[in-house]
Amino acid sequence: MAADKANAEFSKISNITELLAEYASNPAKPNQSLIGDDAAIIAFDNGNPYLFASDLLVENVHFRTSYFTPEQLGSKAIAVNVSDMAAMGGHPLFATISLACPKGFDILGFYRGVRTECSHYRMRVAGGDLSSSDLIFVSVALVGRPFAEPITRDGAKAGDAVFVTGTLGGSAAGLRQLLGDPSSDTSLTKLHKHPIARTEEARILSMLKASSAIDISDGLASDLGHICTSSGVGARIHTVPIEPGASQDNALFGGEDYELLFTHPDPKEVVAMFTTYKLRTPFHIGEILDGNGVYLDGATLPAMGFEHDI
Amino acid sequence: MAADKANAEFSKISNITELLAEYASNPAKPNQSLIGDDAAIIAFDNGNPYLFASDLLVENVHFRTSYFTPEQLGSKAIAVNVSDMAAMGGHPLFATISLACPKGFDILGFYRGVRTECSHYRMRVAGGDLSSSDLIFVSVALVGRPFAEPITRDGAKAGDAVFVTGTLGGSAAGLRQLLGDPSSDTSLTKLHKHPIARTEEARILSMLKASSAIDISDGLASDLGHICTSSGVGARIHTVPIEPGASQDNALFGGEDYELLFTHPDPKEVVAMFTTYKLRTPFHIGEILDGNGVYLDGATLPAMGFEHDI
Repeated sequence: MAADKANAEFSKISNITELLAEYASNPAKPNQSLIGDDAAIIAFDNGNPYLFASDLLVENVHFRTSYFTPEQLGSKAIAVNVSDMAAMGGHPLFATISLACPKGFDILGFYRGVRTECSHYRMRVAGGDLSSSDLIFVSVALVGRPFAEPITRDGAKAGDAVFVTGTLGGSAAGLRQLLGDPSSDTSLTKLHKHPIARTEEARILSMLKASSAIDISDGLASDLGHICTSSGVGARIHTVPIEPGASQDNALFGGEDYELLFTHPDPKEVVAMFTTYKLRTPFHIGEILDGNGVYLDGATLPAMGFEHDI
Repeated sequence: MAADKANAEFSKISNITELLAEYASNPAKPNQSLIGDDAAIIAFDNGNPYLFASDLLVENVHFRTSYFTPEQLGSKAIAVNVSDMAAMGGHPLFATISLACPKGFDILGFYRGVRTECSHYRMRVAGGDLSSSDLIFVSVALVGRPFAEPITRDGAKAGDAVFVTGTLGGSAAGLRQLLGDPSSDTSLTKLHKHPIARTEEARILSMLKASSAIDISDGLASDLGHICTSSGVGARIHTVPIEPGASQDNALFGGEDYELLFTHPDPKEVVAMFTTYKLRTPFHIGEILDGNGVYLDGATLPAMGFEHDI
């Protein structure tokens, strides 16, 4: 979801993209829009690039209170935003948190989750807003910094290898368990409730100068589709790393796994770098092709991603 | 409202302040918290201060659709955030906009309002998020820059003059008219629907090195109270500049006027500087005192501000 989803949704509404276009010119790269990646690349006086993104969680759309505690919600709201920074090859610095909630909501518990997560990602809460509301609504905005050059979605080239940093589908499978029984507590429900943003992996992607990257928020088919559309290329998937207990459909269309999907011209260099830094070797799942579309087993995958409104 | 209101509400919930304290240390001023002003002062590599704030508008709490069009909502969401930058002696650079709304909401109209307002304040939309929801929620986050040194709430000293940049109470009086008749269209309803952030005045305040500043979001009594509490002083109001058609209660307790309230040791210098730059002379409304509390006509004013939940 996140700026990611926002941007996807912005671009669906072409008139809004047109409306915003003149305000969305990228000062760091004047010919590029600020809209269209997981985070905007912004520049200040010193010319260094920073990252700026925001992300929304809405009750009964992104979560239900029957299976999300306030603490878990605070924690997830931070993690999914940090994932947007990771997808750009960056890490978070500061967050603002806007929370609207009904009377009786455990605000303290929510901020306990925020606190633990901010500590984990070494970032600071800079402020925010708090309001009463009949529905719970959380919006987190982050300012961050790329480890080196920011990584965007538009640099994948035919011949590049496609990697993903972990198994997929676990979050969607966990969500299905929770919708069936809100008290479910399995390895899959944990993946849904407490995703981990891949900031360490993002650092390696920066060192590798990955040609493109995105986080798996909408599902592999949709997110690889975003890279292909932005880069003007196609892709073939030859293997789908599926989380034990999840289905291939969960992995392709489920979303919310928050693993990093990236491309690089030299798969051996990728494996060597991850090994050097003692991080789990990413899965080499396919190749970038000339043309367009995402192929698996000779057929084009629909770009349908995770549809909210649970 | 804004980070302003957030901070007020954060500080009401003392446990949360404690919870956040360790994450809210200000890297620019290590002994100060990031929480407690209209915007957080953040610093990057180059050591220059920037501003970061976010603000929330919730349907049926901050506005009703019976009298707010989507375009007006988009416009106001930007303006009230820009006002937080102005209150710090700064101006906006980049915004992210999170919008949750029901199907059928005029998203295009909303962004038309955003566009016009961003153009007015010379800022860019950097991204955001969009979601379906049964209620309308808007959260805007801004990154901005102080014109010179940021102005905080904590620098008022006994003997300083208290100024406000315009008449007060108009917004609250306009809201009353709209709640009575949603089709009302008067100079007062315009003040409520389309507040103007005082960025030009903020530039003058920076040049004057105002000793403290805040924007009138909660009402004069409450917002002057915030300055007094942060600065460890009291204040006496000797005159209340009331918008024609509004009451003194509207001016003291109404809020949402978004004029700048500030303090300065030399009232003549204030008047001279505003005159030089051809801006309306601010109203000299009172003085800062030793002690605490806000006095008018010899009595302490309650700090009650605008209560949302319209």
